[in-house]
Amino acid sequence: MNTPLLDQIQTPADLKRLPESELGPLCEEIRAFLIESISQTGGHLASNLGVVELTVALHRVFHSPEDQLVFDVGHQCYTHKLLTGRKKDFARLRKTGGISGFPKPHESPHDAFLAGHASTSISAAYGIACANRLQGRKDYTIALIGDGALTGGEAYEAMNNAGRSKTRLVVILNHNDMSISKNVGAFARYLSSMRSRPAYLRFKRGVDILLKHIPLLGKMMKSWLERSKSLMKSILYPSTYFEEMGFYYLGPINGHDLSELTRTLSRAKELGAPVVIQVETVKGKGYPFAEENPGAYHATAGFDILNGGDNVTMSDCYSNQAGMELTRLAAEDKRICAITAAMKYGTGLHLFNAAHRERFFDVGIAEEHAVTFAGGLAARGMRPVFCVYSSFLQRGYDQVIHDLAIDQKPVLLCVDRAGLVGEDGETHQGLFDAGFLSSIPHVTVYSPEGYGELRLCLEQALKRETGVAAVRYPRGADKHTHSLPASLDYTLCPGSPEMLVISYGRLFSHCWDARKQIEQESFAPSLLKLTRIAPLDEEAVAAASAYPVILFAEEGMASGGIGEQFAARLLERGWKGHYRLQAVRDQFVPQGDVSDLMQKLGLDSGSIAEIIRQEMKRS
Amino acid sequence: MNTPLLDQIQTPADLKRLPESELGPLCEEIRAFLIESISQTGGHLASNLGVVELTVALHRVFHSPEDQLVFDVGHQCYTHKLLTGRKKDFARLRKTGGISGFPKPHESPHDAFLAGHASTSISAAYGIACANRLQGRKDYTIALIGDGALTGGEAYEAMNNAGRSKTRLVVILNHNDMSISKNVGAFARYLSSMRSRPAYLRFKRGVDILLKHIPLLGKMMKSWLERSKSLMKSILYPSTYFEEMGFYYLGPINGHDLSELTRTLSRAKELGAPVVIQVETVKGKGYPFAEENPGAYHATAGFDILNGGDNVTMSDCYSNQAGMELTRLAAEDKRICAITAAMKYGTGLHLFNAAHRERFFDVGIAEEHAVTFAGGLAARGMRPVFCVYSSFLQRGYDQVIHDLAIDQKPVLLCVDRAGLVGEDGETHQGLFDAGFLSSIPHVTVYSPEGYGELRLCLEQALKRETGVAAVRYPRGADKHTHSLPASLDYTLCPGSPEMLVISYGRLFSHCWDARKQIEQESFAPSLLKLTRIAPLDEEAVAAASAYPVILFAEEGMASGGIGEQFAARLLERGWKGHYRLQAVRDQFVPQGDVSDLMQKLGLDSGSIAEIIRQEMKRS
Repeated sequence: MNTPLLDQIQTPADLKRLPESELGPLCEEIRAFLIESISQTGGHLASNLGVVELTVALHRVFHSPEDQLVFDVGHQCYTHKLLTGRKKDFARLRKTGGISGFPKPHESPHDAFLAGHASTSISAAYGIACANRLQGRKDYTIALIGDGALTGGEAYEAMNNAGRSKTRLVVILNHNDMSISKNVGAFARYLSSMRSRPAYLRFKRGVDILLKHIPLLGKMMKSWLERSKSLMKSILYPSTYFEEMGFYYLGPINGHDLSELTRTLSRAKELGAPVVIQVETVKGKGYPFAEENPGAYHATAGFDILNGGDNVTMSDCYSNQAGMELTRLAAEDKRICAITAAMKYGTGLHLFNAAHRERFFDVGIAEEHAVTFAGGLAARGMRPVFCVYSSFLQRGYDQVIHDLAIDQKPVLLCVDRAGLVGEDGETHQGLFDAGFLSSIPHVTVYSPEGYGELRLCLEQALKRETGVAAVRYPRGADKHTHSLPASLDYTLCPGSPEMLVISYGRLFSHCWDARKQIEQESFAPSLLKLTRIAPLDEEAVAAASAYPVILFAEEGMASGGIGEQFAARLLERGWKGHYRLQAVRDQFVPQGDVSDLMQKLGLDSGSIAEIIRQEMKRS
Repeated sequence: MNTPLLDQIQTPADLKRLPESELGPLCEEIRAFLIESISQTGGHLASNLGVVELTVALHRVFHSPEDQLVFDVGHQCYTHKLLTGRKKDFARLRKTGGISGFPKPHESPHDAFLAGHASTSISAAYGIACANRLQGRKDYTIALIGDGALTGGEAYEAMNNAGRSKTRLVVILNHNDMSISKNVGAFARYLSSMRSRPAYLRFKRGVDILLKHIPLLGKMMKSWLERSKSLMKSILYPSTYFEEMGFYYLGPINGHDLSELTRTLSRAKELGAPVVIQVETVKGKGYPFAEENPGAYHATAGFDILNGGDNVTMSDCYSNQAGMELTRLAAEDKRICAITAAMKYGTGLHLFNAAHRERFFDVGIAEEHAVTFAGGLAARGMRPVFCVYSSFLQRGYDQVIHDLAIDQKPVLLCVDRAGLVGEDGETHQGLFDAGFLSSIPHVTVYSPEGYGELRLCLEQALKRETGVAAVRYPRGADKHTHSLPASLDYTLCPGSPEMLVISYGRLFSHCWDARKQIEQESFAPSLLKLTRIAPLDEEAVAAASAYPVILFAEEGMASGGIGEQFAARLLERGWKGHYRLQAVRDQFVPQGDVSDLMQKLGLDSGSIAEIIRQEMKRS
């Protein structure tokens, strides 16, 4: 691919040297490169195509790394990576050992703060801005946040705290009317309404300029306006939401117009105080398939550029199976409601929405609210189901305890993307939920393997009249290799009495396969498959305690996980065997192909087989 | 105490039968009763005195339990409890087996939703309101939330989601300019500014009434106003923040004027759509000491009514020790900053604020933001300390993982109120932090016992240049009974080689005392005191593995806790002894005196001594 302008740029300083007339063509090159490159590697397409001009303008006006750019969610940082010397790495984007699809401070000094989850950028940027102020630095800190992420409460907390502070904080509100699902909520409507207030905003800007250019009179008038607690004030000087929060407000401006962007960003620098700039962008800009259907091109596998991708979204996956089963169950039980936090498609709940629209709730990127809201529905006799990715449920941990578990509300948590997720890396791996959910009293946690068992667990969990249940399942398709009947508690597959291998979820199939490999050599250990992982089944523990050697394999953190809990139960029963726990220890798991990661963590069938051999030799 | 009117009221129906002229005297009785009763039992005073008229008006206008009242935070529910048949229980308020200081659905059908933490009420109420809509009920749901709790992001998430919904949701914004510390942030200033806009609000109300009373013309004008996307609209029809969020807005009204309250609440019912009513109240109303110093009378122990309380706040406590030590360290290291989420006094950080005002940050009730904000400060070279109660840190769990731990930011978490807290009950017990913090890679957790060890841990934790450290300590004063030197890792106190008792934090002194009790009889087990509980010290595990019988005593949840982790490590080392874990299992711990609770949970020195005797007999 021919990108002569882009190839001249290794640092933002190179970009600043480019004549203004070359910026348009540069953006074209970037766009073409992104489409080409992501069509091959997969990655986040639509959001990155939307912020090409904006990112170029930011790096023209501000001075990274002294001025720090904090990306919210972070998947829209590709142009930023291209402009900071990482073009050559795009062939290994999101691959094992390659560059991350998110900002990573360890990857470049231009990546000011790590991201992956939503709604954190203003908090982080305000922290950086306060540090700058304390250190007497004049640097700017810029948070780039989409309107979707603004539905998250943390962004509001940060706005509330940063408003009227004496910091050089610039919040760029990237308004594209889209989170992963179509954006929802009152605030999204408010932002859209801003677009239609040009007359008001022109008037307001006019007053501002007038006041500024007649220094003495202006100062008097402004001070009079500010002091005056009268009707006049609210008529002559109405405020936007952001102004009420103590920010200057500029915009809305066209996010694909480089000169308007540059002008407005420069204006923001002059203010020297917290400012919000509302920038209107089009997701997928410049690639018709993505412009038409940005949701489908949010995160894609590779695709065919000329024809668009057929396979941009998955269909054979646990998420859709859960969505279908919940839809079916909700037809029978009118109390069942489904909730998503802006992940209608990712969680398979688009199916539920199509069938039971009135009982479907997309609450926006708002996991805390989603959990308590579910508690409210349950308090009045409904049977809510909150479908959420494991790593995002971390946001609702307190609410699961406080608003659901203490009062034993009958709520079902469908914990999607439990376990390793692959290319999204550290921030998205679902390695904590088994531990943090099982630590909460009165929470029952199922970790089914296979669609059949998933359906069984969902159905049973929804039949409970009291208490929180969680059903957790991995990203992607069912690939289980055994033919055990679906169970709700545990399944023991007898083999040699000398050794027992225990696991749960999709990892059980790795143990199953490991046994097959070993079997051909010599020895077949017994296997124990846990479907319910909390509370632990005392019968299962009793059954396990008959074996002198136990290997527990777990796709999750060792610390606080199920394997440790099982070990403690065995000890308390007076068991005196040899125990080996194979799980994730003392590390965050980086990006990579899931099967690569399994191998690295010693959780693939080959590694498990090898551990079995070792342990048998030892004992 | 003579309360003839109050004594007639067992249910809200009784209240409705009271002639209007009796309501003022009733409020006086309630106020006198609250002051008298709380002066004896302790409890939340200032907030309850502020909402006497408001609660009476709510129960006059609405019909509990069909209409449901959801209290935010919940400690302002005392008048509600008095009006719903629980006056006789006030002598046992917050005591073991007595009534809770918070709403508890299991206590009364009038307590619609459990509370204890902040910012959840609108989410829960909206859930209930949606359930009502789905079930075709016409009942109202009322969320009562203070301006302090409105700084929490979850409240914003809920407003965003509920705005413009077709539900009968009434949000009462109790505006008293106070959270536990003085309320902070842009939004608090905004609310206060509303007070000074009577002319604007009268004008707006005038337009509303005009439009309503000229039906056809009004409808045309309103529709014209709403359609018209012009300057005219924003001049003639400016909006409040709440209106932008899709709520009707009524107020501000005087929260101590019963007839204004009743009139406005009735008006809200007529709207049949989400509405916010801003009610101005005075915390501590009617008790001069509390009006003057509502912070000190937020939650009190008993006090002398005539002279006010000297002992309403604690001074000899871990919180103040931490505050003092951080203040001292910050004098030496200018990078140290302190952050609180609206708990300046509770965490002892008022001392830090007095000495290093520019490096002190009260971010409002906003734990999510607080954690990420700390990460931002650390990203730019500062050494932030976030002091937070254990049960409130649950709110920032995802942020500790995502914004601090993955990137190993040098941030110190001071986890106050770790362990049992007593009177506040289930929602406030700090029983989860040891488990959830230790499950996060790269997080070092210290659990010192005694002020000296606390200081040592704080100092060492702040000297680290990388990674998250947490120092956790209990509510109240240092009462440790041993004289071991302060340590950063572990301390072994040799005794009998037959048995080892392991513990951490203040529970170690219970084990120490248990040994003393036993010693006099016959036998003195060895003791192991863990100061660093994560990552576990392999040397400590090795030392423990020399003992054939181990008792691990833990003031926290067994599931996912340190005792289980220790057990797993022992097993992995091939240890074949007898293990007993004494910790909190499968229950939320209700309110009560801490020493009562310790006894019930088998964690007091007597119970531990008894367990030691049992285990020695067994083996």
